[in-house]
Amino acid sequence: MTKLEVLPVVGIREIAAGDDLATLIVAAIAADGWHLKNKDIVVVTHKVVSKQEGRVVEIPDEEAYRALVEDEAVRIVRRRGDLVITQTKHGFICANAAVDRSNVAEGYAILLPVDPDRSAHRLRMLIEEQTGTSIGVVITDTFGRPWRRGLVDVAIGVSGVTSILDLRGTYDAHGNELNVTEVAVVDEIAAAADLVMGKADQIPVAVVRGLDIVGQGRASDLIRPPEEDLFR
Amino acid sequence: MTKLEVLPVVGIREIAAGDDLATLIVAAIAADGWHLKNKDIVVVTHKVVSKQEGRVVEIPDEEAYRALVEDEAVRIVRRRGDLVITQTKHGFICANAAVDRSNVAEGYAILLPVDPDRSAHRLRMLIEEQTGTSIGVVITDTFGRPWRRGLVDVAIGVSGVTSILDLRGTYDAHGNELNVTEVAVVDEIAAAADLVMGKADQIPVAVVRGLDIVGQGRASDLIRPPEEDLFR
Repeated sequence: MTKLEVLPVVGIREIAAGDDLATLIVAAIAADGWHLKNKDIVVVTHKVVSKQEGRVVEIPDEEAYRALVEDEAVRIVRRRGDLVITQTKHGFICANAAVDRSNVAEGYAILLPVDPDRSAHRLRMLIEEQTGTSIGVVITDTFGRPWRRGLVDVAIGVSGVTSILDLRGTYDAHGNELNVTEVAVVDEIAAAADLVMGKADQIPVAVVRGLDIVGQGRASDLIRPPEEDLFR
Repeated sequence: MTKLEVLPVVGIREIAAGDDLATLIVAAIAADGWHLKNKDIVVVTHKVVSKQEGRVVEIPDEEAYRALVEDEAVRIVRRRGDLVITQTKHGFICANAAVDRSNVAEGYAILLPVDPDRSAHRLRMLIEEQTGTSIGVVITDTFGRPWRRGLVDVAIGVSGVTSILDLRGTYDAHGNELNVTEVAVVDEIAAAADLVMGKADQIPVAVVRGLDIVGQGRASDLIRPPEEDLFR
């Protein structure tokens, strides 16, 4: 096993609707004196993808914000005071239907991409075309957890990498079949990338280098089906 | 922001009760031709810590295993078929009270350390003494998530690093106060480290290098208090 590197992509300017995000990422990496390699995984916070796709809406006041959250949610899972745990149209369960008011001008909010797996695929195709490499793309958002304080980044869009590493049929050195059989490896990649991004640091992209998990995963693979959900 | 490295510590032999884990880790790193630096974070899967501390018990049959799970749990959160979601004595909510039957001889199970924050502290003191460095230690386990398929590594013991990065009062480039105010940075470290460990690869230790988060965090900081828990 070789070491893993997580490389921040610095110098990406504020993104607006219609921007060519792939070109901006490739140019920022080149300007910093390095370049993408095969099997690199480009991790992008959804905010820049959503901005590029025009998923920014005006919210004149608090009431408009709350209406937007209800509109973006297909189901309210729990509600307490201002906190609303929702299921989004994509199937993700998170606070406030992932409607986000930071890293955008005051009076606006950022929605999730309509189809983040498709956004990841499109970005991957464009980056691969420009660089002649074969890479993976993971789009992330920041979610809470029901029983653990603090938030972590998770994968909401995936292309070109395995999403869940299936270890069924793998045995440890004692000859026991592993009881951890499915590792959510793209969520671990999202978390690793967040460590170099920072929330206010204007580093919306990082590259994870050193993994060999080329695959056909989707972030939608990570959504637990309702019949397995013990906490509806 | 500089890059992050995640370095696997290879060549650590099977651990038994009473082993000097700190010496084994330091020796394995030296044998591989590198050494610890200040601010490095040594991430250790709890299994080797539990083995060192003698937290291995015999389970003659399935019934003994189930009895052990009930005994290690202070509360059953949900139960469906063979799946039991529990709260452990430490306050962690996870499957089967974290009683683990892989990476141990058949007929045995590994329990969590009695006080993983204390175990992390002890290991940190011993490694720092041997190496003359100032480091962090994170002890990990592999937990499921209620709404996301697949498992991820999280921190169950912490010493010498910040557990939750508190960004309240931090503003983005638009002048908005961040709405992501608490980042569970040690859980992101645990996840990053797992990417180089592998579940069957006999790599129970990794070093995360490049972060500057020296602090007084505890894994117990991450436990959401019952009054904030919407999913009891």
